[in-house]
Amino acid sequence: VSGEEGLIERWFQRGPRRPDVALGIGDDAALLQPAASGLLVACTDTLTEGVHFPEQTPPDAVGHKALAVNLSDVAAMGGTACWALSALTAPRADPAWLGGFADGLLTLASRFGVALVGGDLCRGPTSVTVTVLGTVAPRAALRRDGARPGDGIWVSGTLGDAGLGLAVLQGRAALSGPARRQCVRRLHYPEPRLTLGGRLAGRATAAIDLSDGLMRDLGRLCRASRVGAVIEWERVPCSEALAAWMAHEPEGWRLPLTAGDDYELLFTLPPGEEARLGAELEAGEPPCTRIGTVTEPPGLWLERGGYREIWEAGGGFDHFVEGA
Amino acid sequence: VSGEEGLIERWFQRGPRRPDVALGIGDDAALLQPAASGLLVACTDTLTEGVHFPEQTPPDAVGHKALAVNLSDVAAMGGTACWALSALTAPRADPAWLGGFADGLLTLASRFGVALVGGDLCRGPTSVTVTVLGTVAPRAALRRDGARPGDGIWVSGTLGDAGLGLAVLQGRAALSGPARRQCVRRLHYPEPRLTLGGRLAGRATAAIDLSDGLMRDLGRLCRASRVGAVIEWERVPCSEALAAWMAHEPEGWRLPLTAGDDYELLFTLPPGEEARLGAELEAGEPPCTRIGTVTEPPGLWLERGGYREIWEAGGGFDHFVEGA
Repeated sequence: VSGEEGLIERWFQRGPRRPDVALGIGDDAALLQPAASGLLVACTDTLTEGVHFPEQTPPDAVGHKALAVNLSDVAAMGGTACWALSALTAPRADPAWLGGFADGLLTLASRFGVALVGGDLCRGPTSVTVTVLGTVAPRAALRRDGARPGDGIWVSGTLGDAGLGLAVLQGRAALSGPARRQCVRRLHYPEPRLTLGGRLAGRATAAIDLSDGLMRDLGRLCRASRVGAVIEWERVPCSEALAAWMAHEPEGWRLPLTAGDDYELLFTLPPGEEARLGAELEAGEPPCTRIGTVTEPPGLWLERGGYREIWEAGGGFDHFVEGA
Repeated sequence: VSGEEGLIERWFQRGPRRPDVALGIGDDAALLQPAASGLLVACTDTLTEGVHFPEQTPPDAVGHKALAVNLSDVAAMGGTACWALSALTAPRADPAWLGGFADGLLTLASRFGVALVGGDLCRGPTSVTVTVLGTVAPRAALRRDGARPGDGIWVSGTLGDAGLGLAVLQGRAALSGPARRQCVRRLHYPEPRLTLGGRLAGRATAAIDLSDGLMRDLGRLCRASRVGAVIEWERVPCSEALAAWMAHEPEGWRLPLTAGDDYELLFTLPPGEEARLGAELEAGEPPCTRIGTVTEPPGLWLERGGYREIWEAGGGFDHFVEGA
């Protein structure tokens, strides 16, 4: 046994075991036993070096993030994650890098009881595509298209830290000490909000995870639901590190609205659910914040400093629109 | 709607519809209804330009092959393919290339009733990772580890054409006319053997699809089953085009044993099943051929020209062993 198989056996045949895995890594395909009731949730996302993560990103961060962005998608559906497949492309079989990658991926998998059941390892420019499969109760799934006028717009955690971390690494922003470490950490090790997604299942009217920036992802949710939205800038939750940085940057206020890689959940709650769940969500971990309201007319509006203005499209990250 | 979403809507939200798809492309994840009985089959494979397919490969061939290699894995498990997710990375949003890629993938998907339910499209070096999900009856799945001494070793179709096609494109072999077209076609448009795999389910003792060369993949099957094998070179099925080429190449006889990309099925049948199924398999489409026998002592042996010699490891394609 050598080459690809030796590497896969050495690094990837570890992690959580699940009784619903009839056959894991090592055959042509995995054999899995889906839950008797419930829908299957399936998503796939690619991270490419130089596009989705800077060169010099620690390998365990690449492994963590490649799984985390997919777990975040399952969370945004209100689902439970069960199994993952990892297709890794790397220019060479560097044991330290591969070991770090596997550690990052499997440590996160263990925390959520996700079994790594398949994979592929081959040569080429550094890139990783993870597929995650999970389950959700049929009528409880959180889609993008259920938001209704009058619903409150909520977001988990704080926004913009990962974007500031990226700006710091790229030399576009200066930050030092604990604030720098915190923002770079948010960029490298996003936390999938699976527990929160599970609590919102069957209650929120719509949900999406924030990968490409608040206003861009809100736009997607609103288009799918055929509604509009008003966001109150002063309510958008930011960390102390980001608030301190924004205080000295004239255009800094845009960052929590447009920066990607937050992987927080954006969701809409009808007034009845806000009354039932609101206080609990505000006091939860992560804390959730009501930042705006769904409106009937389409379009995104931003209230800031007492003024309400239409939000021009173009903020946030799109892989195929230059300068977006 | 622009950028990634516009492209995905335009090219990928087509193809077969299935009643077991509760939510397809366009949300954070797909929602699928697995069969009430049966195991879920899951596999993922990456194709990278310059590694798995030459630059200048027609885009529809890239789309076809990216799905085909995964359907071939499902076939090798004896399964039925249901759903696919496609993660495509490309350096730019070239409409002609993307349209061709989508056509190749969706044309093949349509032939086997596979719904494209998710995907990702982003910028970077050309590479595509497809995940296929399917189903198989619990005790009928074809694993690699069930071959027993005395079983016959069978293979579908003919071997080596794709390898010769690659050699032709790389200028390592000269071929012209219909022979050249046939071999390049086998390289670019492999045919997943799903119907055959389904017929072998519950009957073959072991199966694997031939992606990295007969002897290398046979070695994998034998190691998993803790057995050995004797292969009779004169029985290994080759096309007329390959036979004509081999007649003029002193070392050409190695090609059908070592060349990758055939995506035929290699499987083992116990004597009782050979008696029941053998004639039918030989006359089937694709025709299947008995090429050897499973032995108790480990190791691969090759009979050729009246001699039996041990097969030295190292033939076939391994992404992380140079010169393999």
